[in-house]
Formats: sequence, C-alpha cells, structure tokens
Amino acid sequence: MTGILLRNIRPLGGPPVDLAIRDGRIGAMGEGLSADGLTVEEGDGAICVPGLVEAHTHLDKTVMGMGWYANAVGTDLRAMIDNERAERRRLGLDVSRQAMRHALALVGNGTTHVRTHVDVDTENGLDGLRDVLSLRDALRGVLDIQVVAFPQSGLMIRPGTAELLDQAMAMGADLVGGLDPCAVDRDPKGHLDTVFALADRHGAGVDIHLHEPGEMGAFSLELICERTRALGMAGKVTVSHGFCLGMPDARRTGALIDGLAELAIAVMTTGAPSREVPSVPRLRARGIRMGAGCDGVLDTWNPWNRPDMLDRARIVAQKNNMRSDADLAAVLDLCSSGGALAIGVGGHGLALGAPADLALLPGETLAAAVARGGPVLMTLKRGAVTARHGKALMEAP
Amino acid sequence: MTGILLRNIRPLGGPPVDLAIRDGRIGAMGEGLSADGLTVEEGDGAICVPGLVEAHTHLDKTVMGMGWYANAVGTDLRAMIDNERAERRRLGLDVSRQAMRHALALVGNGTTHVRTHVDVDTENGLDGLRDVLSLRDALRGVLDIQVVAFPQSGLMIRPGTAELLDQAMAMGADLVGGLDPCAVDRDPKGHLDTVFALADRHGAGVDIHLHEPGEMGAFSLELICERTRALGMAGKVTVSHGFCLGMPDARRTGALIDGLAELAIAVMTTGAPSREVPSVPRLRARGIRMGAGCDGVLDTWNPWNRPDMLDRARIVAQKNNMRSDADLAAVLDLCSSGGALAIGVGGHGLALGAPADLALLPGETLAAAVARGGPVLMTLKRGAVTARHGKALMEAP
Ligand SMILES: [Zn+2]
Ligand SMILES: [Zn+2]
Repeated sequence: MTGILLRNIRPLGGPPVDLAIRDGRIGAMGEGLSADGLTVEEGDGAICVPGLVEAHTHLDKTVMGMGWYANAVGTDLRAMIDNERAERRRLGLDVSRQAMRHALALVGNGTTHVRTHVDVDTENGLDGLRDVLSLRDALRGVLDIQVVAFPQSGLMIRPGTAELLDQAMAMGADLVGGLDPCAVDRDPKGHLDTVFALADRHGAGVDIHLHEPGEMGAFSLELICERTRALGMAGKVTVSHGFCLGMPDARRTGALIDGLAELAIAVMTTGAPSREVPSVPRLRARGIRMGAGCDGVLDTWNPWNRPDMLDRARIVAQKNNMRSDADLAAVLDLCSSGGALAIGVGGHGLALGAPADLALLPGETLAAAVARGGPVLMTLKRGAVTARHGKALMEAP
Repeated sequence: MTGILLRNIRPLGGPPVDLAIRDGRIGAMGEGLSADGLTVEEGDGAICVPGLVEAHTHLDKTVMGMGWYANAVGTDLRAMIDNERAERRRLGLDVSRQAMRHALALVGNGTTHVRTHVDVDTENGLDGLRDVLSLRDALRGVLDIQVVAFPQSGLMIRPGTAELLDQAMAMGADLVGGLDPCAVDRDPKGHLDTVFALADRHGAGVDIHLHEPGEMGAFSLELICERTRALGMAGKVTVSHGFCLGMPDARRTGALIDGLAELAIAVMTTGAPSREVPSVPRLRARGIRMGAGCDGVLDTWNPWNRPDMLDRARIVAQKNNMRSDADLAAVLDLCSSGGALAIGVGGHGLALGAPADLALLPGETLAAAVARGGPVLMTLKRGAVTARHGKALMEAP
C-alpha cells in the first residue's frame, strides 16, 4: 500500500517539515523527506493539527439543504422539544440523508471524529437511531462516529422510552444518553437510576445533557457523581453543557469540579453565549477532560450553529474571554486532541505511529487559525484525503 | 446624472421588485421598472437592506495586514490599555493606512455608516485623530464616519488629556468620548463633569465606554443620566457596552432602563459573549435606541472580532438567545436602520426618496442572512456601487 507525503506543513504551527504517511499512520516527520513511492501533497506551509473532534452534536436533526426553516417557537425548552417532534413528521425529515449531509459538512471542515446524540422516543421509535448506526458504518474510514441513544423527549415522563433505549444499546449504540433529570424529566432519581442501569447492563458509557442552571443542576450533578462512584464507572461518564458549573459561586462550583475530577467525568461545552457555562481554563487546569461541540446545526432548535469546529473554537474562546495566543491554542486543542481524550479516543495526535487523522488549517499561528476560521485546506482520515478547501470529497446526497 | 436599476432584489426579504436609483436616492420600487437610461445591476433575488451600520468600533487600532499579532497580555483592562499604548510605537502602527484597511473591509461587508472611537492621550497626542478625520474626508461618498475623541488611557489620571480632547473637538471630532469613570479613571464626578462640559461647549454629543459591571456601573450610569438631564442633552448621549444593564437584578436594571428611556440615551452593544450585557429585546421593547458594533478588529485587544456586521448580528443574536426568524430580523435591524437611529442618522431605510445606502445580502430570509453570514453581494453608497462580493471596489493600501 502506498501513502502520502505531506510536503511543507507546520505541525501545530511550528517550523515547516514534511510528513510521510504509510498504512494510514504517521510514518515520519522531518525536513526534506524523500517521496519514495508516496503521493505528494503540497501543504504550502499550512498548519497541521490532529483532526478536529466534534464532541457534541445531533446528526439526526439538521434540515440542511431542505430550504430555510422559519423558526417561530421561541426559547422554552419543553416547547422546543415538542415542536421538533411534530416538525420531524411535517417536514418529512429523512434522517439518513440529513445525517449524511451534516457529517460530510463536518468532514469538509476538518473533522475526523464525532459524538452524536440521536433522538429515541415513543413517537419516532428507533428509526432515526437505525439510520445513524447505518451511517456510522457507511462512513467508516471517513469519519469515526460515536452514537448516544438520547431520550430527547424525556424518559420517566414517556413510559416505553427506557425499553427503547435498551433496544438501542442492543442495536449497537455506543453510549446511553440522558436529559435534565429534574427540569425535563421531573424525577431525577428515576431518570438517573434508569440511565445508569442501562449503561451498566450494556457495559457502555453515559453522556447526559444537563442544561439545568444553578443549584438544580448542581443537585443533578451530585446524583450523577454518586451513581458514577457506586457503579465504578469513573472515566465512562460525560456531562454535556453543565451550565450549573458556570454559576457565580466559585466555592460551590469548586466542590462540584473536584467531584468531576475525582471520578474522571468529562465535560462537553458549546460555549453557549447566552448561558453561564463551565470555565474552560478552570476545568482544564483541574485536569477535567473537556471537549467542544457545535450542538445541533440548522435545525428546529436554532439557526446559528454551523458544522464547523473552527467556528466553534472561536465561540468557545469568546465566551471564556480567552484572548491570548496561548489561550487560543488551548481552545484549538479542546476541539482536537483534548476533545478526542474527552470522548475516549486515545492516541489522537501528531506522534509517529499515530493514525493519520489530520486537518490542514490556514493561518500563521494556531491562534490565527481560530480567530480567522476556515475554510480548512485539507482533511485526512487514516491517511486518505477526505476533504479539500472546506468540501468533503464524498458527494453529499 | 444617470443612476442604477437594481433588478430583481427583495426589500427586507419580501417579494422581488426592481429598485431605481436616481441622483443617489431611491427613486422608484416596483415590478418590471424600465431601465430608461439607468445602468442595470442584476440582483438575482438577493435581499436588499439599508446599508449596515457599524455603531461602535476603533478604526485607529487594527493591525490588519501587518502579520499576526501574538497576544500575550491577557484580560486585565488596565494592562490591555498600557500594552496597546506601548505597542503602537513598537509596531509603528500607521493609523492612516490601518484605518483605511479597516474601513474598506467594512464597506466590503455591506457597511455604509461607522461610528469610530479614536484614542487621544498624552503620549500619542492628536496624531491618530487627525489621521482618522482625514480618512473621514477621503471616504466621503463611500462611507459616513462619525469620530469620537476617546480618552482610552484615562482622563483625570492623565493630566493634559482634557485639553487634548478640547482640541480634538475643535479639529472636527463629532463626539466626546469617555471611559469607565470609576474603574479606570478613579474619579467619576471629575471624569463626567469634564466630558459633559466639553460636549456642552462644543455643542456635541457624548459616547461613553462603560464596562463597569453591577452596582459600580449602575452608579456611573446614574451620574451620566443626571448630567444629561441637567445640561438638556436628552437624545445626544450614548452608552457603549453598558454591561451593568445585564446584571441579574431585573428590578434594579428596570429603573436604569427607565432612566435611559426618559433621557433618550442610546446604547451600543457588541453582544460580548463573556459578559453580562444589556438585553436587546428588553431595551428595544422599552423604546431605547440601540446599535451594534464589532468593537476593535484584529488589534492588540483581542483576536476574534471581524469587520463584519453580519457576523456581529449573529453574535448578538446568540448572546441574547434570539432564535426565531422574527428575533433575527430584529437583530439585523439593530445592525442597520436601528443602528442608524442610535447614532443619530435619520432617514436610513428603504423609503422612496431616501439616500440609496444599501446592502444586498445572500439568503432566503433576513434570518437566514444573519445565520449564514456573508459575503455580502453588493454595497451601495448614495447610489454608487462601493463593493462587490465582500470586497470594496476602492483599493486598500
Ligand atoms: Zn445537544
Ligand atoms: Zn470600544
């Protein structure tokens, strides 16, 4: 099998080198490497980073390419949930097609790994989940996809949902999802006992949407920690959003963060500008694994999100008031190697022997790449070029 | 004098019409207008909005085109101020050239009006101000520029600055600026008495940077209201940022907002994601004139801002959790007609007889234009095309 010689790229914005890829792995890095049967790709001094990691999204929700979705529902969480369930049918949302569009847009923008939550509810059943599992297979070698079976419409308030989640895990979903045990599901004990029991039974991890603010969210977070500890699930649990970690009482959040650190619970952030959010510098300094995600993109929820982790890195930086070059490099790491660790993918980096999952970015420095954004010049997955100039090579449906 | 026929454009995203421009003004709008000696420009169904209004920026600060500025200074306001004053010299920042680059980038992105603050301090004197005043003249017919003489490094803490501001106004600056009377200048009474006395003497308006949070900012805001009332300056005063208006105590901020409404004090927002900010829907509902701005762009302060009011509209929408199509249309208005009113420019709109200051945007709806962003298809100033496809026709230095 031949490979690729990336000529004149700058690993993490450092001095230019050539990078040889053989058998899908980084084989050599250095100045003036010989092409030696490899296909040469000119990097033209682009920055080379480990492929971008979309650690929190919803591939089954986008209306991308279906015309503009006029949103009239407003900002109440329950209303948005009910609106979406109804709109799925009215719009005839084809999850296979839409998830493929979303996934390939991410590939175009430098992404090599995705964790997606997929709705499972008693109205739409397991159809969407089946579609995304098929997509996961179809995109093997292009994009690694982790699937979270996600009770978007509630669990205890919609009897039958737990059984569907159980089936979803049996079908091959990777993680059990959860959602606001108090605010949405009205039964925090019931909700979390169910979620953790499912995860335990299937030997899977957990990734829980926790929008609950302030002390309500802190309470749910404590319940999550208790169950993580009791079931020996340290390192297998993720909290998405975790807005309560952004509440002003630094002593209180300090205690919560200590709990996360002890149990190696990961935190995914979108840097939601309108909310209090977990502090990226603070949590990372405490050793918490963090990833970032764009959340749903062009869906019935909101119009602003883009399938673009460079765009998200800028949003997370702005939200966290991270301005210096060192700060911006840290945010890019959050959207790359750091995010990979957070979703449990090891060895994602520029080391010799690592899988050649790479993105070539424009810009003088890592900070400039975040500030100025795309288009990403090239995406590589396992040593194969998957996208050029912001566009995936595989045709979207 | 001939004019332009914009064929097949959609005013504010409505049904397609032709728009005839004669003598720099909107002469007619309707279906199938005759070209009749006019130069025809095909709109191809683009959205037509009143030209975008950059209501808060700093044309004298950008390092655009000077290579990436590596920021190591962090986030302390005083440190950032001192850093910039020193870096101006070290970098040899040529204000004429840089302000022109910044201004033309704004024109490329659909802008027809700008209010810029320009540093006046005892180290750099009035040089930068003189350069921006020359730019204002040089760009007449391309971009309307309002100049605020801005004591960035402090006023009472830097004796001699008040005299420089006085000279700046005599040279032709449009408004007197101010900055954090408590937090930076350490003498709120002295600072505001000086600023308002200068404005009163020159018959000019005031635009004060107020970053002070919580009760400190509220106190400064009260002092601003007292002076506005005492000097009969209702309608001539602007507060930029006004972070204190975003503090959680809604009763307290309600009283402040009532004060602003009574005195017709305008508020400029950047939608700063990391701060508490004035609520756009709340202030607009109370009748407060609001504008939006990108603030400094690619300067020693921060790396993320872009000279792009569509980008800013998206940030303001995200920060204010404005998701619906109606909300996004309101945010676009904030960056267009609403912003014009806020900086005291009347008649900025799509009415017959209005100056043909226009931007053609891509997108199905106003909301889509905000969500998806540029490049802006065309900018027109007084009926002349000033930019196409995101690039000003005038060459930047
Ligand atoms: Zn989500
Ligand atoms: Zn400013």
